[in-house]
Amino acid sequence: MLQLYIGNKNYSSWSLRPWLVLRQLGIPFEEMKVRFDSFAPDSHFKQTMLGLTPTGKVPLLVDDGLAIWDTLAITEYLAERFPQAGVWPTPVADRARARSLCAEMHSGFTALRSHCPMNVEAHLPEVGARIWAEQAGVRDDVYRLIDMWGQQLSTHGGPLLFGNFCAADAFFAPVCLRLDRYALPLPQHIQPYVQRVLALPSVREWTRAALEEKDFREFEEPYRTASGMLAERSLPQP
Amino acid sequence: MLQLYIGNKNYSSWSLRPWLVLRQLGIPFEEMKVRFDSFAPDSHFKQTMLGLTPTGKVPLLVDDGLAIWDTLAITEYLAERFPQAGVWPTPVADRARARSLCAEMHSGFTALRSHCPMNVEAHLPEVGARIWAEQAGVRDDVYRLIDMWGQQLSTHGGPLLFGNFCAADAFFAPVCLRLDRYALPLPQHIQPYVQRVLALPSVREWTRAALEEKDFREFEEPYRTASGMLAERSLPQP
Ligand SMILES: N[C@@H](CCC(=O)N[C@@H](CS)C(=O)NCC(=O)O)C(=O)O
Ligand SMILES: N[C@@H](CCC(=O)N[C@@H](CS)C(=O)NCC(=O)O)C(=O)O
Repeated sequence: MLQLYIGNKNYSSWSLRPWLVLRQLGIPFEEMKVRFDSFAPDSHFKQTMLGLTPTGKVPLLVDDGLAIWDTLAITEYLAERFPQAGVWPTPVADRARARSLCAEMHSGFTALRSHCPMNVEAHLPEVGARIWAEQAGVRDDVYRLIDMWGQQLSTHGGPLLFGNFCAADAFFAPVCLRLDRYALPLPQHIQPYVQRVLALPSVREWTRAALEEKDFREFEEPYRTASGMLAERSLPQP
Repeated sequence: MLQLYIGNKNYSSWSLRPWLVLRQLGIPFEEMKVRFDSFAPDSHFKQTMLGLTPTGKVPLLVDDGLAIWDTLAITEYLAERFPQAGVWPTPVADRARARSLCAEMHSGFTALRSHCPMNVEAHLPEVGARIWAEQAGVRDDVYRLIDMWGQQLSTHGGPLLFGNFCAADAFFAPVCLRLDRYALPLPQHIQPYVQRVLALPSVREWTRAALEEKDFREFEEPYRTASGMLAERSLPQP
């Protein structure tokens, strides 16, 4: 049985990606959650993860003793191991493009990632409005997403980036959560894609579990206080 | 015929990776060099690249009208298109590990990348010594490389990370150039790997071409002035 090591579902955007690939495509796996802590060398998280992988990070896939780390390597491993599962689109050109988009996500969008950290249970439209006004880098990142997604949706006619679900949608799912939670402005032809991703059964399952964690981690929370978070818990859940 | 768009050979570490994969594995391609300039929206570089790819960046692979951008996506495309070429190692576990290492490089080592930008013709041991003393992040990045390479070399017995050349060596070639040019301290069992990478025929060919460019780009040069560069041109070539 595959084992996928992940971090807190509320915060760990990297963990979310391969988890979604597995779950949405129906590949059985055992979820191994390692709670975020200080990440100090002697912390429980680091001790646990360094015993399994040299980077000491999540996500980590373990297949019968073989450790594969980093989201993109995990994704390629799953594509090879389950060739019929639909990790990548079947046509060569679509597959090449899906990989271009995922690799672009993997090394880019740094402004959006740093200013709007993923936080499933948060509802931060005011923070989002301020970031939108102040951070040209965030605006550029979002414009690039709008352009990319608009082109994919018009090429394939939706519902997702390459028609059916594939790894590319999983790679952008954390971004969809950010756009939604920070309420960043999106044009009308893009908003439905974001909502379709958030409505995927696998994304809803992750979201539900994230909301149940109630595990406030200070260093992941530039915009909320622990008490502010508790107040927000009464918001309607997605 | 494949076309690979690249930037200045002296500076463009991303361009170097897929170029090496192609050249070292003997896959024929046409090199399309687009000189670095300001990268402003109306610059020649941006105008050229935005006409070909939505990111407007190099490297870009074009195969019969199909544009594939980002080093990792290009690498996977080549692995699929030339299955016998040896882009990835053949054993499943080695291939998974090679991808983990490349994906780790693709999204990580940010301290080393930002403090020690690739600069083939530069010889900056004093700068390197200062960076080494001051930047804990750079030291951590180098320690991770030492650990990673040490483990690979002891597992496979060399000469390269997975025995013969594969994409993983190409992904770390820019790092080898940095370690050499900034003269960062390496243990005795690691230094020969760096020198073997620098001695690969494809790396030597790139290096020679980089030295011939003599195209000083201010924004890529935190540590040299144009006249300083000219002084250094008389250094022995590798
Ligand atoms: N590029 C990696 C990034 C993994 C990563 O940064 N994971 C974070 C959690 S989301 C982590 O484990 N951090 C622990 C640490 O930095 O020590 C991937 O794609 O898997
Ligand atoms: N993640 C990309 C990075 C590509 C990249 O940043 N390329 C630089 C040159 S080394 C570039 O084209 N910069 C132009 C710009 O930023 O406008 C890859 O792996 O290909």
